[in-house]
Amino acid sequence: MSRLFITFEGIDGSGKSTQARMLADALRGAGHQVVATREPGGSPGAEEIRALVLEGDPDRWSAETEILLFTAARRDHLERLIDPALAADQIVVCDRFADSTRMYQGLRGPGLRKIVDDLHALMIGREPDLTFIIDMDPAKGHARAKGRQTAEERFEDFGTELQEQMRAGFLDLAKAHPDRCIVIDGDRTADAVAADVFDHATARIAAS
Amino acid sequence: MSRLFITFEGIDGSGKSTQARMLADALRGAGHQVVATREPGGSPGAEEIRALVLEGDPDRWSAETEILLFTAARRDHLERLIDPALAADQIVVCDRFADSTRMYQGLRGPGLRKIVDDLHALMIGREPDLTFIIDMDPAKGHARAKGRQTAEERFEDFGTELQEQMRAGFLDLAKAHPDRCIVIDGDRTADAVAADVFDHATARIAAS
Repeated sequence: MSRLFITFEGIDGSGKSTQARMLADALRGAGHQVVATREPGGSPGAEEIRALVLEGDPDRWSAETEILLFTAARRDHLERLIDPALAADQIVVCDRFADSTRMYQGLRGPGLRKIVDDLHALMIGREPDLTFIIDMDPAKGHARAKGRQTAEERFEDFGTELQEQMRAGFLDLAKAHPDRCIVIDGDRTADAVAADVFDHATARIAAS
Repeated sequence: MSRLFITFEGIDGSGKSTQARMLADALRGAGHQVVATREPGGSPGAEEIRALVLEGDPDRWSAETEILLFTAARRDHLERLIDPALAADQIVVCDRFADSTRMYQGLRGPGLRKIVDDLHALMIGREPDLTFIIDMDPAKGHARAKGRQTAEERFEDFGTELQEQMRAGFLDLAKAHPDRCIVIDGDRTADAVAADVFDHATARIAAS
């Protein structure tokens, strides 16, 4: 039995969600017990908070209130789903986690990254064991993301310039946390990326 | 024009809401511009968060998640209603504010008061100009509160022992913040209490 908390991060359209799903399936195929989840959301309460944040007028919440709501959702997700799964020696594969808040909310204005970090330290205080940062040229990622707009589209609609900042931010995070972050070239077929991800994940499981 | 942020605090059944309403009416009668509001809630977004917290299974949120949600609601309430009203030189009368979170959430378990205080310092950082603590024998307050149970009744149903702790906690707050807190004997007719409250409020307005 392997206990490992794996997250997927990257800009919009990088293929995070597809890769998270493919890794969960491949690990199950290899005989592991896997809980696949996502953020924002992932537990019933956190999904309700997600709906509150993502639906409606883009200006309905300030950046600060949004960060508080996402932190509340993350706390619930950890308590109700992630921690119990890890305590039962399962592998948790999560599509987005705190690194997304650091980029998406932290880059929205001056001082916000510090608020994200302070709230994380105070109320979450946990990092994944392994984070795949799926790296992608923002122009390509944006074109992909535009192809699947939903009611939550405002979160996909940041424009290429901000996506460039976020890409750089994710690469900075990887440099700052080489122990847990692995940068994966996302500009390949999904199968090629998935094979790469699976190799890294199984190596980490073997070492754990 | 007077700019003043006035809050009402106290245990369940102490008469806070009645007194907040009576003071708002009396100040309007005296020619002041008054915004009457309440917590949790008070702005459209904060009211949605209130519903999320107060409805459903009492165990649906941990104390920590609940504190985050109330802090998010308070941040929204401040940004959208309280601060704009004060900036327009109005008097804000609010039924409950941060002191309620300090007592109701802060007393739920070890370490929680510190979380409430840290989150307040980080995300709210504001105190009222004047806080009326309506003091009441918990046995009498409890009997009153029981008479009007609603879907939100779990918040009214703490039992006399916890109400005793909260009464003591509110009185401690008043001692710690004599600049803004006035303890009012709530065990009198509503009119007698209201007259007392009105005198203190008008004195503070005159001095401001």
